[in-house]
Amino acid sequence: MNTRTALITGAYGFIGRNIARLFGEKGWNVIGMGHGVWLRTEWTKWKIAEWNTCDITIDSLQTYAGDPDVIVHCAGGSSVGFSVSHPAEDFNRTVSSTLAVLEYMRLFNNTAQLIYPSSAAVYGRQDDRQLGEDEPLSPVSPYGYHKKIAEDLCKSYSDNYELRVSIIRFFSLYGEGLRKQLLWEACGKFSRGEEQVMFFGSGEETRDWLHVLDAVKLILLRSESSDRFSIVNGGSGERVTIREILEYMSNEYGAHQSVLFNGVVRKGDPNFYRADTTRAVSLGWKPSVDWRQGVRDYVKWYQGACRG
Amino acid sequence: MNTRTALITGAYGFIGRNIARLFGEKGWNVIGMGHGVWLRTEWTKWKIAEWNTCDITIDSLQTYAGDPDVIVHCAGGSSVGFSVSHPAEDFNRTVSSTLAVLEYMRLFNNTAQLIYPSSAAVYGRQDDRQLGEDEPLSPVSPYGYHKKIAEDLCKSYSDNYELRVSIIRFFSLYGEGLRKQLLWEACGKFSRGEEQVMFFGSGEETRDWLHVLDAVKLILLRSESSDRFSIVNGGSGERVTIREILEYMSNEYGAHQSVLFNGVVRKGDPNFYRADTTRAVSLGWKPSVDWRQGVRDYVKWYQGACRG
Repeated sequence: MNTRTALITGAYGFIGRNIARLFGEKGWNVIGMGHGVWLRTEWTKWKIAEWNTCDITIDSLQTYAGDPDVIVHCAGGSSVGFSVSHPAEDFNRTVSSTLAVLEYMRLFNNTAQLIYPSSAAVYGRQDDRQLGEDEPLSPVSPYGYHKKIAEDLCKSYSDNYELRVSIIRFFSLYGEGLRKQLLWEACGKFSRGEEQVMFFGSGEETRDWLHVLDAVKLILLRSESSDRFSIVNGGSGERVTIREILEYMSNEYGAHQSVLFNGVVRKGDPNFYRADTTRAVSLGWKPSVDWRQGVRDYVKWYQGACRG
Repeated sequence: MNTRTALITGAYGFIGRNIARLFGEKGWNVIGMGHGVWLRTEWTKWKIAEWNTCDITIDSLQTYAGDPDVIVHCAGGSSVGFSVSHPAEDFNRTVSSTLAVLEYMRLFNNTAQLIYPSSAAVYGRQDDRQLGEDEPLSPVSPYGYHKKIAEDLCKSYSDNYELRVSIIRFFSLYGEGLRKQLLWEACGKFSRGEEQVMFFGSGEETRDWLHVLDAVKLILLRSESSDRFSIVNGGSGERVTIREILEYMSNEYGAHQSVLFNGVVRKGDPNFYRADTTRAVSLGWKPSVDWRQGVRDYVKWYQGACRG
C-alpha cells in the first residue's frame, strides 16, 4: 500500500498540529510548513515527518511541499485584534498564503485535495439563530473579511482550474494546548484567585464550541471527499452563552469566583454564533466531546501545564 | 479658492485618462500614477499636471500621491482573458494595488474620498434581467472574483477605519480611444473587407453599453458624495444584443458585411448584462450618449485614427 502524503501549512499552530497528529496516526506521511520555533523532538511528537520553517509562497511550496495528496492550509492570521491593528499583515498571512497554495496547485499539483479551515467570522453580525452555509456573508473585522476573501479565491480557482477544494467554517475551536482566546484568558484570570473576575461584553453573547479533536475528524473525513468544491460548517450546533461557559469554568477551576461583565463590546466581536450542522452530519460526522467535558479537560490541562 | 487635488491611479488607461481630463477641465490639480509609456506632451493633453511611472504600492503612494482630496483607483487588471491565463498577476494588479491604496489612506490620508471603478463582472452569470446593486454576486472569471475581492477590501476598510469609499460598477464601457474589446476587434475585422465576419458566441448575449463620457460624469458626481460607503451601478439600463450592435456597426462601417457567430462561448463570458440604474439616476445622473450615436462616433474615430 502506498503511503499518502499530507501537507499541512501552519502546522505549528493549534489546529495544524492536531491535524498532523491525526493524519500521522492514520499512517500518512505528514509534511509541515510555516513559522514557529520548535525542536525536532517536539514536532515528531505531533507525528510530523518533515518540518520546514518558511513563509507559504509559491517558491517554498515548490521546494518543500513534496507532491502531497492532501493539503490542509492552516497558515494564516488567527487573531481578530491583530487584524484590526495590522490589517495589511493579516491580509498577507491569510490571503496571500492562500493564493500561493492555489497557484502551486494550478501549476504543479492539480490533483491534490485542498482543505481550507475557514471561520464562522465570515458570517459576521447575525441574529441569534443557526447559521447555514448558504447564509449571506457579512463579516465585521478585517480577519473575517480576509477569511471570506480566501474562500472566494478558493472558489475562483476551483471554478476556473478545476481544483478540488473543501472549505470548513469552524466555529469556536478549543482544546488542551490552546494558549489564547477566551478560555485561556479566563484560566489566567481565575488563577489569580481574586473574588471577582471581569470580562468584556454582556455575557449574553453566544458561541458554538467545537473541540479540536472533533474538528480534525471532520478534516480527515473531508480529505476523502469527491466533491469539486464544497463548504461545510464545523460546529456543535449548540448555543452556549459566554456567561454560562465562564461560570461553569469558574466552578471547575475550584475557585468559585464571581464572573462579571463590563458591558464593553470589543470591535469585531459579533453577538451570536451558532452553526447549522445539518450538512456536516449528513456527511457522517458528529461531534463527540460535550462542551462541559471539554471545559473540564481544558481546566485540568491548564492546572497541570501552567501551574503544576 | 483652494485648488483641489485628484489622484488617479492607472491614469494611462482608457477610463483613467478620461477622468483626468474631466477633473482637469474642472480646475482640479490632477496627479497620475501607474504604468504606460507616454510623453509629457501626451499626458498634459489629458490635463494631468504630474505623471509618475510606478507600481501602486504604499511606498509609491507616500512618495507621489500629493495628499489628494479624491483618489480614483483605476489601476488594475483589465482583461478577462489575461486573468484566466495569469490569475496571480491579475490578482496583484487588481487586489494588491487596492490594498495599497486603502493602507495609504488608513495611515496617511483618512479624509480623502476613494472612488473605485469596479465592474459588472462581479455579478457574473445571471438571468436576462436588470441587475440591482444588492444582487448576490457570483463572478465567473478570476477577473470578476478579483474585482469582488477588491470591493470587499474597500468595505472592510470603510467599516473598520471609517474611510469614505464610493464603488461604481461599470457595465460595458466604450468610447473613442478604446483599443481593445469587442468594438475594437470588430472594427479590425470589418476593415479587412471580407464578405463574412465571424464572432464568438451566439450573438444573442446582451450587454449594457455606457459611453466613457457618461462614466466619468458619474465619477465626478460621486466625488462629492457624503456617504461613508456606497455602491452604484454605472450602466445605461438598455439591453443590446451582441448581434444588434455588431450589425449596426457593420452598416456604419460602410462595408455591410454579414455578421456570423461561431456558437463558441469564451470562458468567463456571461450571457447577459443589464444594469438597474435606479440608484444612479436617483443621485441626479443620467447617461446622455445613445449607443447608436456612440457606435457611429467610435467607427468614425477608428476610420480616422487607424485607417486615415
